[in-house]
Amino acid sequence: MTPFVEALQGRLPGKVRADSAALDTFQTDGLTAFHERPLAVVFAETQADVVQAVRLCFESGVPFVARGSGTSLSGGAVPVAGGVVIALNKLNRILALDPRARTCVVEPGVINAQVSRAAAPYGLHYAPDPSSGPVCTIGGNVAFNSGGAHCLKYGMTANHVLGLKVVLPDGEVVHLGGASLEPAGADLAGFFVGSEGLFGIALEVTLRLLPKVERYATFLAAYKSLEAAGEAVAQIVAAGLLPGAMEIMDRLAMDAAEAAVHAGYPADAQGLLIVELEGPAEEVAAETPRLLALLKASGAYRTEVARDERERALFWKGRKSAFSAVGRLSPEYLVQDGVVPRTRLGEALAAIHALSRRYGLRVANVFHAGDGNLHPLILFDAQAGEAARAEALAGEILRLCIQMGGSITGEHGVGLEKRAYLGEQYAEADMDAMLRLRRAIDPRGVANPGKMLPGGPGPAPIGEPPARA
Amino acid sequence: MTPFVEALQGRLPGKVRADSAALDTFQTDGLTAFHERPLAVVFAETQADVVQAVRLCFESGVPFVARGSGTSLSGGAVPVAGGVVIALNKLNRILALDPRARTCVVEPGVINAQVSRAAAPYGLHYAPDPSSGPVCTIGGNVAFNSGGAHCLKYGMTANHVLGLKVVLPDGEVVHLGGASLEPAGADLAGFFVGSEGLFGIALEVTLRLLPKVERYATFLAAYKSLEAAGEAVAQIVAAGLLPGAMEIMDRLAMDAAEAAVHAGYPADAQGLLIVELEGPAEEVAAETPRLLALLKASGAYRTEVARDERERALFWKGRKSAFSAVGRLSPEYLVQDGVVPRTRLGEALAAIHALSRRYGLRVANVFHAGDGNLHPLILFDAQAGEAARAEALAGEILRLCIQMGGSITGEHGVGLEKRAYLGEQYAEADMDAMLRLRRAIDPRGVANPGKMLPGGPGPAPIGEPPARA
Repeated sequence: MTPFVEALQGRLPGKVRADSAALDTFQTDGLTAFHERPLAVVFAETQADVVQAVRLCFESGVPFVARGSGTSLSGGAVPVAGGVVIALNKLNRILALDPRARTCVVEPGVINAQVSRAAAPYGLHYAPDPSSGPVCTIGGNVAFNSGGAHCLKYGMTANHVLGLKVVLPDGEVVHLGGASLEPAGADLAGFFVGSEGLFGIALEVTLRLLPKVERYATFLAAYKSLEAAGEAVAQIVAAGLLPGAMEIMDRLAMDAAEAAVHAGYPADAQGLLIVELEGPAEEVAAETPRLLALLKASGAYRTEVARDERERALFWKGRKSAFSAVGRLSPEYLVQDGVVPRTRLGEALAAIHALSRRYGLRVANVFHAGDGNLHPLILFDAQAGEAARAEALAGEILRLCIQMGGSITGEHGVGLEKRAYLGEQYAEADMDAMLRLRRAIDPRGVANPGKMLPGGPGPAPIGEPPARA
Repeated sequence: MTPFVEALQGRLPGKVRADSAALDTFQTDGLTAFHERPLAVVFAETQADVVQAVRLCFESGVPFVARGSGTSLSGGAVPVAGGVVIALNKLNRILALDPRARTCVVEPGVINAQVSRAAAPYGLHYAPDPSSGPVCTIGGNVAFNSGGAHCLKYGMTANHVLGLKVVLPDGEVVHLGGASLEPAGADLAGFFVGSEGLFGIALEVTLRLLPKVERYATFLAAYKSLEAAGEAVAQIVAAGLLPGAMEIMDRLAMDAAEAAVHAGYPADAQGLLIVELEGPAEEVAAETPRLLALLKASGAYRTEVARDERERALFWKGRKSAFSAVGRLSPEYLVQDGVVPRTRLGEALAAIHALSRRYGLRVANVFHAGDGNLHPLILFDAQAGEAARAEALAGEILRLCIQMGGSITGEHGVGLEKRAYLGEQYAEADMDAMLRLRRAIDPRGVANPGKMLPGGPGPAPIGEPPARA
């Protein structure tokens, strides 16, 4: 045990583990593409524990990364070489919920879905709904500016975080933003959201709650081609409708979902569009015939509407389980998270299809079509030596997104996986501005180094030994 | 003429003025509470002109401030002592408008209302609607994260800026955010919005456009007390309605507006609530009876609904002209811009009323009630020696907002006027984080120093000679 770990245990007795079992457990995250054994794991029980750990790390120049449920899909929660993991799962209290002001103050280890459950008795809910909602934490949602199917209508996590109490990388505790919708000065809370752990650790998050939706109407529309489904999305938005969610699945994704959960998706469609209208009952009733007409005009040869809540849940179950279901079709898969302008969806899908053929690898497409957020799942077999080819294909898809004026990440973050591509999306001066801000906040570079921004050593891909600095 | 000004003229021939007429014109802004003659005024015609001017300022350590229409109500556009004003009014081109993607790229000197006019043929509009919309510029809106009556439903400027091309204080040109709703990494575009000119000058702004509203229904509700009108707002929101706007005026503000524009406001009310429902026709039709019932239950003794677009415009004209109309009641007035939690509006209004009596100064209240954004107008007569008393009262109102968990600014910014109070709203560590970020972006402190953040010399209040460092 190093003197640093001894000092850490001295400050936080009984809350620090450095045994093999603990270190092994924390060596990777939901992406499972990178691994790195940490020096130690701090199981923080209070905000003060987190501050203590960060201060000691800063003083000693030891890197750290905060971790909630570890569901990151970009490697953001993978330990830093020679660094500490600060586990926040025990910081799971809802500290306040003000139904009149519609705000809620939570610790970072609170589970996403727990917020809506706590708000439900007051007729409120928390809008961002990542597929991992039942397990992922608010702290992780803040770090990656998480989205979800319904972020089309309500925006990402950044739109729902009003204020933050944060421990900066040097151990200073600050308040960013506040409970007000109209903060004074630069939007520092917004600046922190999406910073992937590089600007410190959130200790408290003030969330905006919204009234529960009165009525949902959930539609399935079957298309003969995936591109047609993509075009339909642009047409629906252009017509002035703003559904709560618009999701697309291709044939491969539908096959996987059908095999896993029997969602009742049409067996002969090449593209499936799920559209959910939501709002006051009168609005939904008025929009329903307009939407059906648009779906028909866009080439849907079959449409279905969920007859009850059970059927609605089934439609969604297929979509939400698609990632894991794809695991049935292939020994491994890579999930990507690129964004293209909504108006170029059809074009992007055709290009991905062409790439898939060129690389000889199957790609399943499941995505938040309404905001152009693609989730291509690249199926491969590492045993058959396809891993490098799959990664190359993933890289081409990201470059395609950049070229089309989109982004390399919609909601999963840059993390480890895509940090090499950030410099392709942004110019050198843009990157330099980010690095300057990062140095101002973290002069010693201890907060999750090697993630999001390029440079510095990173953990190794699974199957290879970790690279050392 | 100083060598610096000569160098500036050499780089930007015919675009720099340093004559008395020009310098006098630019010495104050819409607040008219502070003045300072600049060293020179640059009338930039191209983005390259702005970059040139900023680079020379940075090299020479000369401070600068960008200026659009100068409608700042916090002194944000007042020149810095010994500094340059960079006027952006000629950078007034709409560079792109993509109706399918619903985005618009504009130069900073484009007038707010011009964006909606350009978008109108496509059935779109730009949502933020400050009362100064017909004259204020998008660059100024970005600097101060401007709001407006309809920001209750649609959010502030920050919610509508997708990307920015910016010249940083050191002359580096960077792109922040992008056309995507889901930027990668920390939200640097959001960070820039509201930074009041301290992080550089926007050269291009990518704005989000929204579909034009199908139907409006505009209501006046008359109350016997201002507090009751305030309580009604919280009740309407708690009932799950989200009107496009909810504005309140007190008796004094109504009197002023009536005298100025004959809006037809009830002559016997102590509080007037203007509520505007907006959305699809079916939704507005369904919400109308619910709203009327809520207004009645909250104590409105009289309600009116605008019968046509002409009457709607008249209702709004009274509200939008209230600031200038108050000028008829008093030789001078100070307008404040504090925010309190919506649920404490009634309490805040009662406290302001008590302060008004204690200070022996009339306060007219006109405000964005839906988001708790107060605009108390403090009436005073400088000739009668009331200026200092008015300022002290304004300060007490700001402290009241801070104590109630609100903010010292809703939409006018901190500027010169409130920089002394920012340190009361935020703790020292919070302020230190802001200063660190500022130093990272502007190591020489040339970008609008003396604004927003405390410290450094500021221009003098009108009637006093400027303070010198």
